[in-house]
Amino acid sequence: METLLTPEELEIALRSIGAERYHNRHPFHGLLHGGKLNKGQVQAWALNRFYYQSRIPMKDATILARTEDPDLRLIWRQRIIDHDGNEGEDGGIARWLKLTDALGLDRNYVLSGDGLLPATRFAVDAYLHFVRDRSLLEAIASSLTELFAPAIISDRVAGMLANYDFVSPTALAYFEKRLHQAPRDANFALDYVKREARRPDQQHAVLQALRFKCDVLWSQLDALHHAYVAPGNIPPGAFDPVRLSAMDR
Amino acid sequence: METLLTPEELEIALRSIGAERYHNRHPFHGLLHGGKLNKGQVQAWALNRFYYQSRIPMKDATILARTEDPDLRLIWRQRIIDHDGNEGEDGGIARWLKLTDALGLDRNYVLSGDGLLPATRFAVDAYLHFVRDRSLLEAIASSLTELFAPAIISDRVAGMLANYDFVSPTALAYFEKRLHQAPRDANFALDYVKREARRPDQQHAVLQALRFKCDVLWSQLDALHHAYVAPGNIPPGAFDPVRLSAMDR
Repeated sequence: METLLTPEELEIALRSIGAERYHNRHPFHGLLHGGKLNKGQVQAWALNRFYYQSRIPMKDATILARTEDPDLRLIWRQRIIDHDGNEGEDGGIARWLKLTDALGLDRNYVLSGDGLLPATRFAVDAYLHFVRDRSLLEAIASSLTELFAPAIISDRVAGMLANYDFVSPTALAYFEKRLHQAPRDANFALDYVKREARRPDQQHAVLQALRFKCDVLWSQLDALHHAYVAPGNIPPGAFDPVRLSAMDR
Repeated sequence: METLLTPEELEIALRSIGAERYHNRHPFHGLLHGGKLNKGQVQAWALNRFYYQSRIPMKDATILARTEDPDLRLIWRQRIIDHDGNEGEDGGIARWLKLTDALGLDRNYVLSGDGLLPATRFAVDAYLHFVRDRSLLEAIASSLTELFAPAIISDRVAGMLANYDFVSPTALAYFEKRLHQAPRDANFALDYVKREARRPDQQHAVLQALRFKCDVLWSQLDALHHAYVAPGNIPPGAFDPVRLSAMDR
């Protein structure tokens, strides 16, 4: 790409990447939100997605550690607080564990990461490495999937409450909070990249960063879809709902 | 694990990981070697696997760069030569490109990495990061999947020649060479870890490193299987055999 976009054109280009590649379009989310999964499959989703959640404050701390501007650090720090909470006050990670609790997953098993799909780990770790190794502009741009989060969260909460008797509003408290946090975070990051991407190569890098992040999310669902929707595809060592419930007995 | 294994017990434990987790057990390889894939599916495999091949000398150079012992560097250097070749003499990467040529893939497209499954990139890059960030002992142990390569290579060459009229012995020259290189490399690495893993925690780390590497290989096949065996699952932006052949016309 050689032409310089206006900030508004850059935003349009970013939003069109989301329209094509954000994981709300993934068939696994259709199954999840439409009540087409059984409890074991929802467990597998929540278990694997917990690894992503657990790495988000590390990702944000990496950005913090690379930021020279104290004002930017002050604003970005809020993301870590949102996920890790405060003394005596739950953050996003604790709320996600309420979901895995409600689904009947053992908390130590969830925290251990033992049953993760390797592909989950590889995708999430790729995100951490990206944020550490690329430019600060690209690191911030890779957070822009939050722009597209509110729509999927609303669908998810409504769909899961309507379709699964093992899911309650308390179990979904994580998403309630994100409905307000995500747009605030995304708007800040969007303003940042529209302001700081002043050259065509920087704008290209920003667009690529968002594509990369969409791939990180999409490939996590591909792995879940492959392992847990059709029988016989769970990779060696990964969470197996059937085996787990057999152990319960 | 708290007990110290004898070197022979460690070897038995390593081989049993291979027996359980090496990707010769993956259903995608059954389809590939059994002639059950069409040309587009074999193209997708060769294209994605090229990214793995292209990163192997970088992986080995990372190990070289971390090795203080000149004798070890001298031996390990041969791996880079095997893959990159010499002036006027093909190495493994060039031989792999003969396979993608023979399959009708555009060489620039293969080299660009444009059509890769994101999961391929995440898994292979996880291997590079592992070799850079873990102990040298673990980095060397992660190469031990080569112990199990000769059997799969024989099956592959025989199966592909028997089953696909678009595959010739010349196209499979890469594997012919590996039949001799892999055992030499694997035996050296096996002797190294049997000698250097002297504490239970080191032996545990060595076993985990081999499990990790098996996951790297297995998850690449999971991604191919998901994207290219059932219809409708190719992620946004990845190689699409149907679209490509439509463009040819």
